[in-house]
Amino acid sequence: MNIDGLLSERANYMKASDIRELLKWVTADVISFGGGLPDLSQLPLGEYSDVAKYVISNYGLKALQYGKTEGVDELKDELVKFMSRYGIRADSTQILPTVGSQEAIELVARVFIDPGDVIITEKPTYLAALQAFRVYRARIIGVDMDDDGLMIDKLEDTVKRLRSEGARVKFLYTIPVCQNPTGITMSLDRRKALLELASRYDLMVIEDNPYSYFTFEPVDTTPLKALDREGRVVYMSTFSKIIAPGIRLGWVVADQEVVNWLAIAKQAIDLHTPTLSQYIAYELLRRGIVDKYISVIRETYKVKRDAMLDALSRYMPRGVSWTRPSGGMFIWVTVPSGIRTEDMLALAIRKYKVAYVPGKSFYPDEDVHNNMRLNFTYPTIDQIYDGVRRLANAISEYLNQ
Amino acid sequence: MNIDGLLSERANYMKASDIRELLKWVTADVISFGGGLPDLSQLPLGEYSDVAKYVISNYGLKALQYGKTEGVDELKDELVKFMSRYGIRADSTQILPTVGSQEAIELVARVFIDPGDVIITEKPTYLAALQAFRVYRARIIGVDMDDDGLMIDKLEDTVKRLRSEGARVKFLYTIPVCQNPTGITMSLDRRKALLELASRYDLMVIEDNPYSYFTFEPVDTTPLKALDREGRVVYMSTFSKIIAPGIRLGWVVADQEVVNWLAIAKQAIDLHTPTLSQYIAYELLRRGIVDKYISVIRETYKVKRDAMLDALSRYMPRGVSWTRPSGGMFIWVTVPSGIRTEDMLALAIRKYKVAYVPGKSFYPDEDVHNNMRLNFTYPTIDQIYDGVRRLANAISEYLNQ
Repeated sequence: MNIDGLLSERANYMKASDIRELLKWVTADVISFGGGLPDLSQLPLGEYSDVAKYVISNYGLKALQYGKTEGVDELKDELVKFMSRYGIRADSTQILPTVGSQEAIELVARVFIDPGDVIITEKPTYLAALQAFRVYRARIIGVDMDDDGLMIDKLEDTVKRLRSEGARVKFLYTIPVCQNPTGITMSLDRRKALLELASRYDLMVIEDNPYSYFTFEPVDTTPLKALDREGRVVYMSTFSKIIAPGIRLGWVVADQEVVNWLAIAKQAIDLHTPTLSQYIAYELLRRGIVDKYISVIRETYKVKRDAMLDALSRYMPRGVSWTRPSGGMFIWVTVPSGIRTEDMLALAIRKYKVAYVPGKSFYPDEDVHNNMRLNFTYPTIDQIYDGVRRLANAISEYLNQ
Repeated sequence: MNIDGLLSERANYMKASDIRELLKWVTADVISFGGGLPDLSQLPLGEYSDVAKYVISNYGLKALQYGKTEGVDELKDELVKFMSRYGIRADSTQILPTVGSQEAIELVARVFIDPGDVIITEKPTYLAALQAFRVYRARIIGVDMDDDGLMIDKLEDTVKRLRSEGARVKFLYTIPVCQNPTGITMSLDRRKALLELASRYDLMVIEDNPYSYFTFEPVDTTPLKALDREGRVVYMSTFSKIIAPGIRLGWVVADQEVVNWLAIAKQAIDLHTPTLSQYIAYELLRRGIVDKYISVIRETYKVKRDAMLDALSRYMPRGVSWTRPSGGMFIWVTVPSGIRTEDMLALAIRKYKVAYVPGKSFYPDEDVHNNMRLNFTYPTIDQIYDGVRRLANAISEYLNQ
């Protein structure tokens, strides 16, 4: 049968992620800076497998049974403690485990966005968040960043303008620390100014925070949620980088009313987050394995970031610039404005055997073509040097065409 | 801050499931026939914990990493074999692992339903499917069943009527074998007639099949999908009953074009189904542990069904009738029409310490009050006898008021 006539209007707003499409081209001989994959080579696999065995043997009848949409109490209690170490005070009714932080973004979009509602984001911003918001047909407005992160004066201008146009601004979506894709961290002053502005204009703030657990040098990473006195901040994070992505486990911290709405929305999507993953995370937190692993990746990723920064300064031709992230997984590269990185990608992959994500995909509301996002966590040190050299050659060839 | 002004229009169509709300009342001294929980007491926990340990030790770098939205190849290959044993021929590009079959329902709703579109279901039908369809503001039309399942002549009348009204019928959602909530199995003749009708009226059919793996007596359980020659049937099933619910793993079998759309929709929701759960299921299938466990629950649940049927005939007052399911997890009880089971529930739980799900929640488009769904898989044999006796007393008291 032909399903074309059956598809919803909504299907027009669904689009496979550029990154995931790109990854399909990548063969074994291509060095990929494309994905956001963590380096799992130092995972404590022995400890993890013991924990998995222990969880099933000891909590099996709970860990393998249906659970509440609201999540496993034991995990939520550990998350209360974990969050408190990062300055966030919450009780367990303010926490909701989700299927990765992607589901947290989906739930927020589902509960709050009507077609035409305005969402404000940094420009550029995380492309899978854009993807989730677009399904709900949000109008997404980007605000510029500088080296200190989101520019609060520009944010205020934008909010004022939107309000004067009668737009319904539903929330600001921000990644304050080691932003994806730029790696930029918002300064503490800006974070305070942001909350002050949010209060003045009665804005809700969605804080996406996957990376602040592993920064490589002293930098203030206080979450907005820790500074939030008015319950405006919906905080979301993930275990994908500090345990492993394959358990698909993220969580939200928000006021109880918001958590209740997100849980109701979640119920119709998947009933609840995998109980087994929740108990494994609980046990890894309880045993201190997560904290130990955080310090491992902090060291590993610092070396890799330094290698990539070094390789970039060695190999990149004049006219190319890049960010110097204090942590996280990404460096944002700007090439001369004549280059359209999305067009250059075929050359880079096919001839030079190196992959990246074209910057275009990260822009919510304008076409910018001369950027690319590089991931430094997945490749080895040798691949980083080799890949950046290849990429520099691809750029040079492209410039000289 | 006050979020009332920020909620989407959609939020009005979200509703916590009656079952899940109900379960919150149930204290330790209440015998619950309410949930759809499997009996995990005979789970091969030792084998499961060995498999979990083995999966992390042996496939850890894949099982703990991000995966494709389309799912883990090894699992899909095993599912191809598993499905073929039930008469369904599909290659692995026609299979999509999901976060329980609830997510499969969500994905179908998301890809196909625009507000006002018509979905046809059995009457009564699975309440969490209704919940998912309602978020997308479908108009849901129920069609009557008799002891042989969905009445195909009534279905045809309904389709004709809807077509003549100009309604856009998007699909028929059906649970042909051991239906939830009634336990009724559609006869093979009806299944064939259903497909013939679907072909004549160019209908898509969503076949939800959680229960056909464990029927207790010889009954034809050939899936619609096995009879489907035109790619009209989107088949969905789950490991929740034949492995365990806590891994949250279901799957879809459909034409590749449909699978592609569902995967695109899924990407924005949660990127992919937990890789760890997928590898665990793969290994349990590969080792034959799933097939062995299916024969265990077939025996266990048969004894429990028989116990509940026996208890019902011993204790229920005159005027109460019930279905005799060939498998699955539920018996559907009809009480005298004066009784509103949703009103009787407080008495049943508080005074008689027994819980059920009021039938009302399972009706898509009319108010029927004199039914209840009883689960026979979770309680013990003693609890079944004791609970049915208590329930019978509650009904008698209610009738004599």
